[in-house]
Amino acid sequence: MKIGYLGPKNSFTYQATNAAFPNQTQLAFSTIQKCLEATIAKEVDMAVIPIENSLEGSVHASMDYLFHSKELTVQQEIILPIRQQLMATNPGIPEVIMSHPQALAQSQAYLSAHYPDVAIVQTPSTTYAAEYVTSHPQEKVAAIASKQAAAAFGLTIIGQDIQDNDQNETRFWVITRKVKPTESTSKVTQGKLSFFLTLPSNQPGVLHKMLAAFAWRGIDLAKIESRPLKTSLGQYYFIIDLAVEDNVALAYYAFEEVSLLGAKIRVLGPYEIRIVK
Amino acid sequence: MKIGYLGPKNSFTYQATNAAFPNQTQLAFSTIQKCLEATIAKEVDMAVIPIENSLEGSVHASMDYLFHSKELTVQQEIILPIRQQLMATNPGIPEVIMSHPQALAQSQAYLSAHYPDVAIVQTPSTTYAAEYVTSHPQEKVAAIASKQAAAAFGLTIIGQDIQDNDQNETRFWVITRKVKPTESTSKVTQGKLSFFLTLPSNQPGVLHKMLAAFAWRGIDLAKIESRPLKTSLGQYYFIIDLAVEDNVALAYYAFEEVSLLGAKIRVLGPYEIRIVK
Repeated sequence: MKIGYLGPKNSFTYQATNAAFPNQTQLAFSTIQKCLEATIAKEVDMAVIPIENSLEGSVHASMDYLFHSKELTVQQEIILPIRQQLMATNPGIPEVIMSHPQALAQSQAYLSAHYPDVAIVQTPSTTYAAEYVTSHPQEKVAAIASKQAAAAFGLTIIGQDIQDNDQNETRFWVITRKVKPTESTSKVTQGKLSFFLTLPSNQPGVLHKMLAAFAWRGIDLAKIESRPLKTSLGQYYFIIDLAVEDNVALAYYAFEEVSLLGAKIRVLGPYEIRIVK
Repeated sequence: MKIGYLGPKNSFTYQATNAAFPNQTQLAFSTIQKCLEATIAKEVDMAVIPIENSLEGSVHASMDYLFHSKELTVQQEIILPIRQQLMATNPGIPEVIMSHPQALAQSQAYLSAHYPDVAIVQTPSTTYAAEYVTSHPQEKVAAIASKQAAAAFGLTIIGQDIQDNDQNETRFWVITRKVKPTESTSKVTQGKLSFFLTLPSNQPGVLHKMLAAFAWRGIDLAKIESRPLKTSLGQYYFIIDLAVEDNVALAYYAFEEVSLLGAKIRVLGPYEIRIVK
C-alpha cells in the first residue's frame, strides 16, 4: 500500500505516518493539497495530514480542501505527542537557535530561561533547521526539532523535551477515497464521527435548532468549529466531531433530520483513534 | 500612541496597522505572544495581531493567549483583503519562486498555469522572500509578497493579484488592556461582540443548552469555534462572535443566564469593524 504524507521526511507528520503504517511505502508531498490530490488521483491509497495544533501546515488548509472535495473520507485519527529537542553538532553554547515559528513559540519558556541572549532565526520547517545545523558544523548554531530528526541528521540533543506544555499533541487524519457509507458505519463502534454542516440560512438560532437533533439523542459534540465558506464574508460552514460509542446509527438519524430542516451534511466517516505513546 | 504589531515591517499585519493607525508610532514584534506581552507591560498602548486566515502567524496562538490572559480586550477588528504579487529585480523568467508556504498555497493555480517548471522555495515570511530577491539581483529568483513589499524593496511586479481566490481576506484584532465593561459596552452599537465560553461539563447537549440563551433572544452567532483547554485532551473552550446591532445589552443578559447555568464567560468586548479597501 502507498501512503502519502505532508513532508519533509522526519517531520511530525512523518512520525505519525510511521506509527500507523510502519511497513508501507511512504511518499512525502510538499503541501496538504498535493497530498490530497494524489489520493484522489489514486497515486497513493491513503494520505496522512495534520488537523490540529500542527507544526508543518495549516489545519485550515486540510479542512477547506476536505470540505470542497466530495471524494474523500477519514479512515482513522492519529494523536501524536509533540516533544521538542534542542540539537547541535557539538555541546557548546549556541549563538543562534533556529526552527519553525511554532516550534520556537512552543519552547519559549525554556529559551527565555536558558538562552535569553541567543539570536532566534525562523525556518520553513523543523527539518530545515536540523538540516542547516548538520550542514554548517563550523557555525555555533542549534536547531529545535524532533528526536527523530536528531537521529536522522546525527545531531546531539543538548536540551531534552523543551516544549512548555506537556499536553502538547497534534491530531492527524488518515484520508482515503470514499467508501460506501454502509461499509464504514458498520466498522467503528468506538471512536469519532466527523461531518461538515452548512446551514440553510444565517438567521439567529438556526445553529441552535440543528444542534437540538444531536442534543436530544444524547450524542456528545467533541468539537465544533466554523470556517468561512469563501463565497462571501460572514458565510460559514461547520466542522463537527461527534463522540460515538455504539450510537453511530443514531447519528445518521440526526443527519437525516437536519437535512430535512434544510441543512447540508457531508459525512467524513466514523473512524477509530490511534494514540501514539 | 504606541502601536505594537506582528512584524516584520511590510507584512500584512503591518498593512492592517497602517490602515488603522497611520500617524502613530509603530513597533514590530517577532511573535504574537511578545506583541501581547508588551501590551500588558504597557510598553505599547495597543497591539495588532492576525486572527483568521493569517499569513504570518497562527490564529490559534492569538486565541489561546487571549483566553489565558485576563487583562486584554478587543478594541476593533480590521479586515484586510489579501492580494499576492509576483515580484523580481528584472522582468525575465525566474528559475526559482520563493515565499511563505501559505502565500505559495494561495497562488497555486497561477503558479501551475504560468510557471509549472519553476523551483518553489519556502521562506519564513513573505517579507523575507522579497528581501532575499532584492539582495540577490544576480540570481533568477522571484518572490510572492504584497504590493507594499514590492514598493518598499524597489522590486518590479511581474504578476499582479495572483491569489487564486478574490475573497481572500485576513481578520486582525486591535488589542488593548481591559477597560471597565460599562465603558466599552456603551460605545459600540454596530459591530461584533466576542467572548470565550467554558462549559460546566462535557455532558451531551450542554452546548445546545447554552446557545439557547442567545437563540431565543434573537442574537446571531457570527462564528463559533472550539479550542483545546490544554488541561487534558478532549476538554475545550469556545470562542464565539456575536453580531450585535443595538442589542449589546441583550447579550449581557444572555451572559448572566449562562453563568448561572454554570458556564464561565470571558468577554473580549464589543468592537467596531474596519474594512480596508
